[in-house]
Amino acid sequence: MQQAARQAQPEHTLSPEELRKMNAYWRAANYLSVGQIYLLDNPLLREPLRPEHVKPRLLGHWGTAPGLSFIYVHLNRIIKARDVDMFFVTGPGHGAPALFANTWLEGSYSEFYTDVPLNGEGMRRLFRQFSFPGGVPSHTAAELPGSINEGGELGYSLVHAYGAAFDNPDLVVACVIGDGEAETGPLAASWHSNKFLNPARDGAVLPILHLNGYKIASPTVLARIPHEELESLLVGYGYTPYFVEGDAPERMHQQMAATLDRIFDDIAAIQRRARREGAKERPRWPMLVLRSPKGWTGPKEVEGQKVEGFWRSHQVPFGEVRTRPEHLQLLEQWLKSYRPEELFDENGAPRAELLDLAPAGPRRMGANPHANGGLLLRELDLPDFRDYEVEVPRPGGALNEATRTMGVLLRDVMKRNAAACNFRVMGPDETGSNRLSALFETTGRAWMAERLPEDLGLSPDGRVMEVLSEHLCQGWLEGYLITGRHGVFSCYEAFIHIVDSMFNQHAKWLHAMKETPWRRPIASLNYLLTSHVWRQDHNGFSHQDPGFIDVVLNKKADIVRIYFPPDANTLLCVTDRCLRSRNLVNVIVEGKQMAPQWLDMDSAIKHSTAGIGIWEWASNDHDGAPDVVMACAGDVPTLETLAAVDVLRQLVPSLKIRVINVVDLMTLQPKEEHPHGLGDREFDSLFTTDKPVIFAYHGYPWLIHRLTYRRTNHKNLHVRGYKEEGTTTTPFDMTVRNDIDRFHLAGDVIDRVPGLGYRAAHIKQHLRDKLIEHEMYIVEHGQDLPEVREWKWPY
Amino acid sequence: MQQAARQAQPEHTLSPEELRKMNAYWRAANYLSVGQIYLLDNPLLREPLRPEHVKPRLLGHWGTAPGLSFIYVHLNRIIKARDVDMFFVTGPGHGAPALFANTWLEGSYSEFYTDVPLNGEGMRRLFRQFSFPGGVPSHTAAELPGSINEGGELGYSLVHAYGAAFDNPDLVVACVIGDGEAETGPLAASWHSNKFLNPARDGAVLPILHLNGYKIASPTVLARIPHEELESLLVGYGYTPYFVEGDAPERMHQQMAATLDRIFDDIAAIQRRARREGAKERPRWPMLVLRSPKGWTGPKEVEGQKVEGFWRSHQVPFGEVRTRPEHLQLLEQWLKSYRPEELFDENGAPRAELLDLAPAGPRRMGANPHANGGLLLRELDLPDFRDYEVEVPRPGGALNEATRTMGVLLRDVMKRNAAACNFRVMGPDETGSNRLSALFETTGRAWMAERLPEDLGLSPDGRVMEVLSEHLCQGWLEGYLITGRHGVFSCYEAFIHIVDSMFNQHAKWLHAMKETPWRRPIASLNYLLTSHVWRQDHNGFSHQDPGFIDVVLNKKADIVRIYFPPDANTLLCVTDRCLRSRNLVNVIVEGKQMAPQWLDMDSAIKHSTAGIGIWEWASNDHDGAPDVVMACAGDVPTLETLAAVDVLRQLVPSLKIRVINVVDLMTLQPKEEHPHGLGDREFDSLFTTDKPVIFAYHGYPWLIHRLTYRRTNHKNLHVRGYKEEGTTTTPFDMTVRNDIDRFHLAGDVIDRVPGLGYRAAHIKQHLRDKLIEHEMYIVEHGQDLPEVREWKWPY
Repeated sequence: MQQAARQAQPEHTLSPEELRKMNAYWRAANYLSVGQIYLLDNPLLREPLRPEHVKPRLLGHWGTAPGLSFIYVHLNRIIKARDVDMFFVTGPGHGAPALFANTWLEGSYSEFYTDVPLNGEGMRRLFRQFSFPGGVPSHTAAELPGSINEGGELGYSLVHAYGAAFDNPDLVVACVIGDGEAETGPLAASWHSNKFLNPARDGAVLPILHLNGYKIASPTVLARIPHEELESLLVGYGYTPYFVEGDAPERMHQQMAATLDRIFDDIAAIQRRARREGAKERPRWPMLVLRSPKGWTGPKEVEGQKVEGFWRSHQVPFGEVRTRPEHLQLLEQWLKSYRPEELFDENGAPRAELLDLAPAGPRRMGANPHANGGLLLRELDLPDFRDYEVEVPRPGGALNEATRTMGVLLRDVMKRNAAACNFRVMGPDETGSNRLSALFETTGRAWMAERLPEDLGLSPDGRVMEVLSEHLCQGWLEGYLITGRHGVFSCYEAFIHIVDSMFNQHAKWLHAMKETPWRRPIASLNYLLTSHVWRQDHNGFSHQDPGFIDVVLNKKADIVRIYFPPDANTLLCVTDRCLRSRNLVNVIVEGKQMAPQWLDMDSAIKHSTAGIGIWEWASNDHDGAPDVVMACAGDVPTLETLAAVDVLRQLVPSLKIRVINVVDLMTLQPKEEHPHGLGDREFDSLFTTDKPVIFAYHGYPWLIHRLTYRRTNHKNLHVRGYKEEGTTTTPFDMTVRNDIDRFHLAGDVIDRVPGLGYRAAHIKQHLRDKLIEHEMYIVEHGQDLPEVREWKWPY
Repeated sequence: MQQAARQAQPEHTLSPEELRKMNAYWRAANYLSVGQIYLLDNPLLREPLRPEHVKPRLLGHWGTAPGLSFIYVHLNRIIKARDVDMFFVTGPGHGAPALFANTWLEGSYSEFYTDVPLNGEGMRRLFRQFSFPGGVPSHTAAELPGSINEGGELGYSLVHAYGAAFDNPDLVVACVIGDGEAETGPLAASWHSNKFLNPARDGAVLPILHLNGYKIASPTVLARIPHEELESLLVGYGYTPYFVEGDAPERMHQQMAATLDRIFDDIAAIQRRARREGAKERPRWPMLVLRSPKGWTGPKEVEGQKVEGFWRSHQVPFGEVRTRPEHLQLLEQWLKSYRPEELFDENGAPRAELLDLAPAGPRRMGANPHANGGLLLRELDLPDFRDYEVEVPRPGGALNEATRTMGVLLRDVMKRNAAACNFRVMGPDETGSNRLSALFETTGRAWMAERLPEDLGLSPDGRVMEVLSEHLCQGWLEGYLITGRHGVFSCYEAFIHIVDSMFNQHAKWLHAMKETPWRRPIASLNYLLTSHVWRQDHNGFSHQDPGFIDVVLNKKADIVRIYFPPDANTLLCVTDRCLRSRNLVNVIVEGKQMAPQWLDMDSAIKHSTAGIGIWEWASNDHDGAPDVVMACAGDVPTLETLAAVDVLRQLVPSLKIRVINVVDLMTLQPKEEHPHGLGDREFDSLFTTDKPVIFAYHGYPWLIHRLTYRRTNHKNLHVRGYKEEGTTTTPFDMTVRNDIDRFHLAGDVIDRVPGLGYRAAHIKQHLRDKLIEHEMYIVEHGQDLPEVREWKWPY
């Protein structure tokens, strides 16, 4: 096996003066980290520390902070020495004190937060605000300059880093991965992102695995396997790992400096080979393993118990500072061990020799514009979606696979923005399966691993990203969007639940962004959910779950949008709208199967702009009030509703039915709850105030009740949807099992419309007979009744 | 680096006769796999194949099936030769045809499904039912004998296998991992499970990485990295990989047999060293890499396009069999290439020489009792939970950390069942943080990686399993439960969303189990969700998400239970109930912070048995109807509700308030919807039919509307809950930001109770003043108002 990994030897990379200054800078960062965790006042210790200078609630994480600062200081050196465009992704997000410290030291923090200037008063505020009511969270978040990664839920640092690096050839994303985070599934999968990164076209990611050995209360796996096994693992992931290990600061500084020089030489060489020499093979990118003590430079022991280099330093190493004088003294000693008087001038500003070490302007990692991607966002050049119209001579008069049509639109979006290099489509190996294959007419699948002669459409330059990991698709796209680009994620509906928590965190990120004035709007995260619950013809029960919508709806109304285009032309309208939007999460749910088309382009534009509307052509209540309202949201529910209308017209021609179709689910919510919500008067004019409403809904039926319980006519609302019944069966049988098929819907109407007299029982019997006929037919033939399969809207 | 991996040399392990028979068995399995995908009738091809013999809808996956059968046949040989207790986990779950084929061939299938006997008629039914309405799904599922893993959502095979192996020292779990599945995050993390498996106490897991090279439409990552890189990766994961690679059946059979002999020797040696020689170090377990062509033995080309060994063989290699004679002919040739006449006798049963190759009785992998764990389930020996009572002299008259008390109960459950080895507690490094540390008085943290002298509580025999991966915690527990054991998973509430989709799949598994008569009930999956949304003192917005409950509630009512014990004694009752239950998912939401206790044990038993009830001691409507009902669910909402009652009693002593506390959320649903649901009369008698109800709920408020919209008094129901407002702040400020604090709740009452006249405005002003006082105090002091912090129920 290739001996690719090397341990760098400490050298005299840094002059004594450089070493002294860098260590001072690091001491300053550590001092500021401890100060944030502990101090309310007296930030510079210019008077003896008293209990009232200490925060009443000590909340924060010390353990990882000194290691993060160590890395930050050394990356600063590299940036200055080589003029590198780089920013910092903080996997161990609870090490935020280090990041606040470093962005403050380099001056970027005070530019974003002018009330926290680079002086003693600023330092006091920096300390006080940390993990303090009305202040800043104790982990990295949108409020932190230079951050693209929420550090609360662990696992996404590396995939975000890769997302940021794609299509940014001059960027280096330094990504610190905690050894705790490294145990998570998403992180474990993220290492393989290097098979999707093209050294000619994309930037570089520098993974820095930070082994400080411990999680909250136990060791980490990667810190407790033999060195050679870890090396083998990282080589197996496709990297060349360099190790920097130890605890003696001076030696560690030299080793780190030498190693980073080596690494940035490697990166430059890889990029040169790919860009100038046209090398096509996947390079073995360098990475760094930093093994340093948890709580490095903190108290070695507290009351006889090991703290530095152990999990006891994970959060606050000792806490009774306000009540126990010995703890107060310990804190003062600890803070003074950094010799603040040497680090800060009389005004409390960092001394000039420290300030000199930081890069300048946008080269400061806290001020890198990529980390505030809205600054760099370019509008997509979008074709006129009307040009992709599917001919629909009359409602139901055409068949089409809606997502295939969307694929053609996306192909042209891809084509028009090829030069801008700012649009990608992600999916877990389902782009073709989801009928978006027109994309492959203009681009390939991104692929840097080995290729064989028979391969189709793989390309280092591909802009479709496929990997069998929803986590990677989601994480890459998040990183790509937050750094100012655009994209779409297409996924099987049931399996998007795999990234529920990532969606949650992204929605929270967007919410926090909006409350952070200097954060500029970014492109929305657009989901196409297809292969949905109603059409799992050869999959089964495990592939049926429309509940992601419920998860999405728990987030802030100003962030989330959910669309159910009933056909291809509506899907085109909605797609265009989503691609133009900012700071949202847009969920589009659409089947991929051949299905009847209802609206021509003009009608589709009108309908999707309104988001909800009466389909006059399907209704027969034109000359008065309806007897019943039949509402639908989703392509299959729409089909079954219209088929039920047909059944009812034949059985009870006199019945006046109003058909309402919902494209934009948010219209159902009260106006006060969501910006797309209908006013009560509008809602009542659609749904009446007293007629029965049969609502066929794509997902779990109670969601519709949740959205509409305040509406006047809610008491007459009867919702059908997916109720967790299903297996591998025919499309129509799936609807029957969940009582949302045409015959059940027609029966629901009959049950609720008064005045049908003796006819009601007769009709119900007929509908039951149809269902029995269906049952018998599919068991015999394995497919749906011809009259169902071939049904067309006949009016 | 250690040259641990070896490629086994093909040897003459199998005699020519053995080789011939095993290959025949494999041909039979392949024949049966193709038959399932294509044939409706004429299963033995005893007449020329006609279009009507072919299924009208061709749905299924061929690509992975022959490789799975190859492995299965070889494992059968090992089982027979060594009398191994082994079963099969099918990661590439869509290869179900291979599993149906093999369980049918070995006879276990027909024992579970007597209508599918081991003869020609049975074969016809086996074919017909596959991916056919009313039949069986096209991927492995609960309906499949020998299966513990749903093959629909990929990623969990290996973690399930480890869960099954824990505490089953004599078991070998053979786990096939598809190279597609290997790209997922959960699978990538699962490899490290070997650091948690004790060779002395636990069984063995044999990972079989099946590289067939392709996903649906593109290559897989692990199949396209250099051999040495893959080997390095697997060595880095801690295994000794053995490779079997090729496509010539005879050579592959010999190689596979030799390699498996070697591997099972290794396993035996490892177990002997650990069990007889007392070896303590983590062994390097063997694993197998099988590189074989996708669609092996299928058509090499169809219409000039490569099929075998390419992704075109992923599903149905050619499909127009009913309409195109050349496809029909191709199918017939393909089927006949297996020479069925040599494999099946005149009745259609497999010939005796094939039957001889299969193991017998429970040694057949389809009949292994571990895979129907309910068969092996032993009741937990549970202590009397009443012995753990927290003294509560009067409501509010004691303080306690509820989960700490639960930890003491769990400690004793652990202790009493230590000999049975059938109880484990999982958590992502949060057992101590979640206050369950009493467990460590009787057991340690499972840990087989390196240990240092300063380590605390790590042990190869530990029964608490901590790893920073919710996926692993969930997956291990699922595997452990499905194979007939018990456990609890404690998790931070917000991050349980990470396993939303795994919960979904487990709930679906339980539902399918219930519909599969031979599946015996298993212990419930018990979640303790703590460190919840209301108490994220030093974390922030990203740690606040109570939405898992909403996900859970979308599943079948007969599967899910959700509990909000308001204090420690109720938590004890609920825990006992959950540990005794079967086939459920129980979610317990409970804070870990010091909090007032309300109920003594007798009251707690009564209250939690009912699941909902009026707290008479907190109510003052004893002499008539209340003016308002104040309901609460969750520990913090309960506290704020009682404090609001106190505020209101002081301000409006004449106001008659009824306090209702909800422990069992399901009581709110209609009786028809959930077995725990209250009847309407009962509900009305609690909530009245016309009085205002202010409901303080732990999670997203609309959930309560969803549960109660059909109730008489729903129109007067006003719910407060978490509305996505929060940051790092004080406990009380979190409630204020979400309008669920005592002052807002009191204000809600004042707004809704008629007849207060001029007093209403006065009181509202007072409440507003209190909120301003709060705001000012926390910004100044960083903690809550003393009157709030120190508030006690005074009555």
